[in-house]
Amino acid sequence: MKIQVCIIGGGPSGLLLSQLLHLQGIETVVLEKYSRDYVLARIRAGVLEHGFAKLMREAQCGERMDREGEIHNGFHIAHDGVMDRVDLYKYSGGSSVVVYGQTELTRDLYEARDRAGGTVIHNAEDVTPHDMKTDKPYVTYRHEGQTVRIDCDYIIGADGFHGVSRKSIPRDVLREYERIYPFGWLGILSRTKPASHELIYAKHERGFALCSMRSQVLSRYYVQVPLEDTVDKWSDEAFWEELKSRLPEDIAAKLITGPSIEKSIAPLRSFVVEPMRYGRMFLAGDAAHIVPPTGARGLNSAASDIYYLYHAMIDHYKKSDDAGLDGYSQRALARVWKAQRFSWWMTTMLHRFPDNIAYDDKLQETELAYLFSSEAAQRSLAENYVGLPF
Amino acid sequence: MKIQVCIIGGGPSGLLLSQLLHLQGIETVVLEKYSRDYVLARIRAGVLEHGFAKLMREAQCGERMDREGEIHNGFHIAHDGVMDRVDLYKYSGGSSVVVYGQTELTRDLYEARDRAGGTVIHNAEDVTPHDMKTDKPYVTYRHEGQTVRIDCDYIIGADGFHGVSRKSIPRDVLREYERIYPFGWLGILSRTKPASHELIYAKHERGFALCSMRSQVLSRYYVQVPLEDTVDKWSDEAFWEELKSRLPEDIAAKLITGPSIEKSIAPLRSFVVEPMRYGRMFLAGDAAHIVPPTGARGLNSAASDIYYLYHAMIDHYKKSDDAGLDGYSQRALARVWKAQRFSWWMTTMLHRFPDNIAYDDKLQETELAYLFSSEAAQRSLAENYVGLPF
Repeated sequence: MKIQVCIIGGGPSGLLLSQLLHLQGIETVVLEKYSRDYVLARIRAGVLEHGFAKLMREAQCGERMDREGEIHNGFHIAHDGVMDRVDLYKYSGGSSVVVYGQTELTRDLYEARDRAGGTVIHNAEDVTPHDMKTDKPYVTYRHEGQTVRIDCDYIIGADGFHGVSRKSIPRDVLREYERIYPFGWLGILSRTKPASHELIYAKHERGFALCSMRSQVLSRYYVQVPLEDTVDKWSDEAFWEELKSRLPEDIAAKLITGPSIEKSIAPLRSFVVEPMRYGRMFLAGDAAHIVPPTGARGLNSAASDIYYLYHAMIDHYKKSDDAGLDGYSQRALARVWKAQRFSWWMTTMLHRFPDNIAYDDKLQETELAYLFSSEAAQRSLAENYVGLPF
Repeated sequence: MKIQVCIIGGGPSGLLLSQLLHLQGIETVVLEKYSRDYVLARIRAGVLEHGFAKLMREAQCGERMDREGEIHNGFHIAHDGVMDRVDLYKYSGGSSVVVYGQTELTRDLYEARDRAGGTVIHNAEDVTPHDMKTDKPYVTYRHEGQTVRIDCDYIIGADGFHGVSRKSIPRDVLREYERIYPFGWLGILSRTKPASHELIYAKHERGFALCSMRSQVLSRYYVQVPLEDTVDKWSDEAFWEELKSRLPEDIAAKLITGPSIEKSIAPLRSFVVEPMRYGRMFLAGDAAHIVPPTGARGLNSAASDIYYLYHAMIDHYKKSDDAGLDGYSQRALARVWKAQRFSWWMTTMLHRFPDNIAYDDKLQETELAYLFSSEAAQRSLAENYVGLPF
């Protein structure tokens, strides 16, 4: 098989790029290791930045998102007995975020690819990129007992942190940057009405908590837990009790609890690999960088990768201009690092760091006190939260 | 002797408060451990924030500062081969800082106290505050072989980090917060024309450097050095060579060097004590808090203490309203901690931290990249540098 662009990874990044390129007449194949049902069962991000939502609309996949997703013009930070609100709309100059589950977004993208007759191959085993440093790269995989070879102009590695793409690049040409936080997030999903119309980030001496949601009937809550904790240690009752202890009293009193339909612990980690290109293979999204979930930069950090790749491919195929492809890694990384910075800042400001010296705990309180006393600081937060310009 | 307010410490904080209170008809005595010549020989800060300069004018001591001091509407940050400018005037909404040596400012304050017949007792030995928790506090000291007792309504502890005031408070009522940085600043003063009209903060892989000045014929330069370095290890030649290696090439090429007239190493430390009041004694300035010099918050952090004490004393003596005195510690500390935060941020952004992981070095670069890409971030820097509102 011969195709212009072979995309490894059928998550939102790969599907969105595939759909955007298709609308420009550039044809792709998407190879996904897992089944569609498996991919659609994964609980992931839920807050889409301004620019990601725009890309979804450009991909003609924004209809349900705009109908069912919720525009959030702000969020709350509970700390030191008060609940302050960050007015995203006001301080970003009219932007906002869309609360719409990644699961729903992925479903919309699959349906769009189906309607367009796009090729998304599920259960593709042993996907392997080859000859990325030559003019004739190709990808092999096994499917239903057969080994298949796809020749292509370019390979996109959009297969996540654990995917094969990054791992296929010789280690000595990559530089990895990593930061591990000394805690994780225990999260549950429950079919309950959210605690508040907007998200509540809570800084508390017992640890961080977050009241988030996927819709007005589907809530997502998190509490900061030690790295060594396991899910079986946390009954639903224990979770709700711990969550309430970290929330403002009036919020805790009204909190509607219910059985968890998903419960998991995720460690908090930052990771970036440089460069994001190896010959004719380009890395995008989690394959090249991951962030702690604080501040919702994970999926959104992929948005700019997709945007830059999309435009670089148009320039290549329609104008024979390779400047976008050649500059991709540098351009993408510049924005990736800013998202890393913002996630680090939000994480550091809101979590309890067990090994902090007393001075640093006071600095942390002061960061919030300064934030809510300064219009400039709130503008800075808002522009990062709704997404910096591409 | 009986006086309304006894001020321990004849540095700029104590003198300024003394002069301001005098103009309101509130009489003070200032007790200084050292001789006037000694105090005036100390080389200290040189950048006055907006609000400090205003207080100097209110104290009728701003004439020479306004004539000889230089208004700085911005400063430079050299990093990664570029030199970016922070436009303080634009981004603070029209404020600026005044470059005027602390030595000159102290001289002006002494002369004002002399003209007004104010009592400043130099070489006061064994200064000791007593009975601060009673309604009748007093201070004793030895002077020219005599022990003198000053009865007063209030004691101001403005005698610096090593002074007796804070040390006279029982340790169990104070909470100390401290952070030590793993490096110091080697500074020299030279009678040379400054490298630039404005300050240059330089982030370099060899370490931080700063081109500062006291006037257009008196330069002050610094380089970050390991804590274990001593002044005798650094010849003038070695200093100039190291400084040049950390500056942009065009600045280094034009740098005018000369013999040092002062050379010293200061460790970088942050320190705050809470509360800033003990009965009828109030701490102000370095006696209660010190910061690393990055961002010039040291003397300027004293400005708000003096401002709050000045107004609290007016309210007490003229309106019998003690709310200002009662709220002093909380109010002063709120601003002190914001200055601590800013100093920490500037220090962390610009210095080389030998034990940093590679990820954190990248975050540091990104902080600068984000700063100069964001108007909001530059506004935040500017409002802190010219001084947050009192």
